[in-house]
Amino acid sequence: MKTIAITAAEPAGIGPDIIAMLAHTPIADVSLVVIGNHELLVTRAKQIAKPIQSYVFDDSTRQPHRGDGTLAVVDVPLQAPVIAGQSNTRNATHVIKQLDIAIAGCLSGIYDALVTAPINKATICAAGIPFSGHTEYLAKACDCDSVMLLETEGLRVALATTHIPLSDVAKSISCALLKKKINILHNDMRARFKIDAPRIAVCGLNPHAGEYGYLGSEEIEVIAPAIEACAAQGIKVLGPISADTAFVPKQLAQCDAVLAMYHDQGLAVIKCIGFGNIVNITLGLPFVRTSVDHGTALELAASGRANAQSLELAVRRAIELLA
Amino acid sequence: MKTIAITAAEPAGIGPDIIAMLAHTPIADVSLVVIGNHELLVTRAKQIAKPIQSYVFDDSTRQPHRGDGTLAVVDVPLQAPVIAGQSNTRNATHVIKQLDIAIAGCLSGIYDALVTAPINKATICAAGIPFSGHTEYLAKACDCDSVMLLETEGLRVALATTHIPLSDVAKSISCALLKKKINILHNDMRARFKIDAPRIAVCGLNPHAGEYGYLGSEEIEVIAPAIEACAAQGIKVLGPISADTAFVPKQLAQCDAVLAMYHDQGLAVIKCIGFGNIVNITLGLPFVRTSVDHGTALELAASGRANAQSLELAVRRAIELLA
Repeated sequence: MKTIAITAAEPAGIGPDIIAMLAHTPIADVSLVVIGNHELLVTRAKQIAKPIQSYVFDDSTRQPHRGDGTLAVVDVPLQAPVIAGQSNTRNATHVIKQLDIAIAGCLSGIYDALVTAPINKATICAAGIPFSGHTEYLAKACDCDSVMLLETEGLRVALATTHIPLSDVAKSISCALLKKKINILHNDMRARFKIDAPRIAVCGLNPHAGEYGYLGSEEIEVIAPAIEACAAQGIKVLGPISADTAFVPKQLAQCDAVLAMYHDQGLAVIKCIGFGNIVNITLGLPFVRTSVDHGTALELAASGRANAQSLELAVRRAIELLA
Repeated sequence: MKTIAITAAEPAGIGPDIIAMLAHTPIADVSLVVIGNHELLVTRAKQIAKPIQSYVFDDSTRQPHRGDGTLAVVDVPLQAPVIAGQSNTRNATHVIKQLDIAIAGCLSGIYDALVTAPINKATICAAGIPFSGHTEYLAKACDCDSVMLLETEGLRVALATTHIPLSDVAKSISCALLKKKINILHNDMRARFKIDAPRIAVCGLNPHAGEYGYLGSEEIEVIAPAIEACAAQGIKVLGPISADTAFVPKQLAQCDAVLAMYHDQGLAVIKCIGFGNIVNITLGLPFVRTSVDHGTALELAASGRANAQSLELAVRRAIELLA
């Protein structure tokens, strides 16, 4: 039986709510361990009428998840009292601490995979901790290169660059970067997704993929050479394809993943067609990591109106990827 | 009865094919005039077994479109013989000449609206004619500001910038530009789309709309002030919204149009969900202009396998916008 660590993440958001809901959702053949503040989890669960019976997680006594409200918890102290809906910079270290515990546990083999609830990037940054996203933090902590991939039915979108200002995107796209991203995507789709010869469609950077150089030269100078180098390795990679063509259903049918050059080029599409049914997967790490596709939804915290569907999907997908 | 001019556009592409198909498609209560090479249109129509009976258009004798294969043509000489599938820079002036005739006719009132078939931007540029797109060319010819808007069922996307390299986007977004674009969008949605108080959702430029300044400052310094200024005018405008939230169905239900900051941010989404059922509409011009949502599809020219659905939709939408 595999063990999955779940971070409760931002304590003022809906993370604790959807975890309480998950405690009442049967999921077969897995052990779940929540990393977060014990007292907060119990209190929030009661507030939304999903009471939990929690016990402190012990590596020697892992139990299968039953969906009967029982929850194994690794307690992480809060730095300040939590008011639902009000993200507090004083608890930024609490959020980071959860992540660090989860990463250490995954690397040492206590956990087989990590599923993360949503965090508030701005709160963490405002606390003086440089933080651009889970994906980037995990890659750095594991000292490896990673790829952020979002998946929904009929579409997988990977990103060449993630959480950087748009004005930095063009200069961040290098041939070396793209070769690295394409290789991680190729390797993990084989190893984790069990796709023997994954077909990767690579977007252009500019409108119309640069229109033969008339709308930008990066396709000719950077992207096409990276694609050729990867094709020479034997990877099934095609492009650069204009982003407004790459996601047309006929085109999508011909590939297993689309590599977008930047955040909004890929995520606007998948959030439009799949919202609530998307799993965020980090590739390239030494362990499986999936995440919900939504934010902290501060306004819904403790209301009972949060939706745990995306968290459940993230857990179920992590189990599949571990198989 | 309104008269609509249709440019045949790139002669080596599917423009002439889909126009021949349109000649056999009944559309009520409109007069259609094709601007292109007379002989080419007749020959191509025969090649794809959609023969046409053409006559030279005369402003004094406009006939209703019947869909019986009859076609009114304004003849524009070719500069070089046409080989279907092979775009030729020598015919770039032929393509531009069609546009100039159409624009002059719309401005002088001979035509009420313009519908354009696809052109090959790279061919025109390679011929030494600076050309970044129909939208930009029309705005310049009419000496006005324009907005490119794409429309499909359930979604309208307008663009703040259009056919420029991605690395130029951030510096092209100014408060003045956005105010102009939002005003054109507001005015034309009232005048042409008959929406009394159109609700406009404005995307951010950066991932997560800049995440409170941590992922870019343009939202705070440029976009939000433009939105505030337009709201103060009484325009229903909201944002800046993260582009990966702006197109979520629940969010779309709350607006009549989304203003994306650049080409791929908006068009990747609409082409994904609406391809083949999208009309490209230029706002801000002194006349109605619509266009197909596809390219020249050189490989399909003269094959009979082109699909005229988007052209028919563009004509029907132009008629509605003229009502």
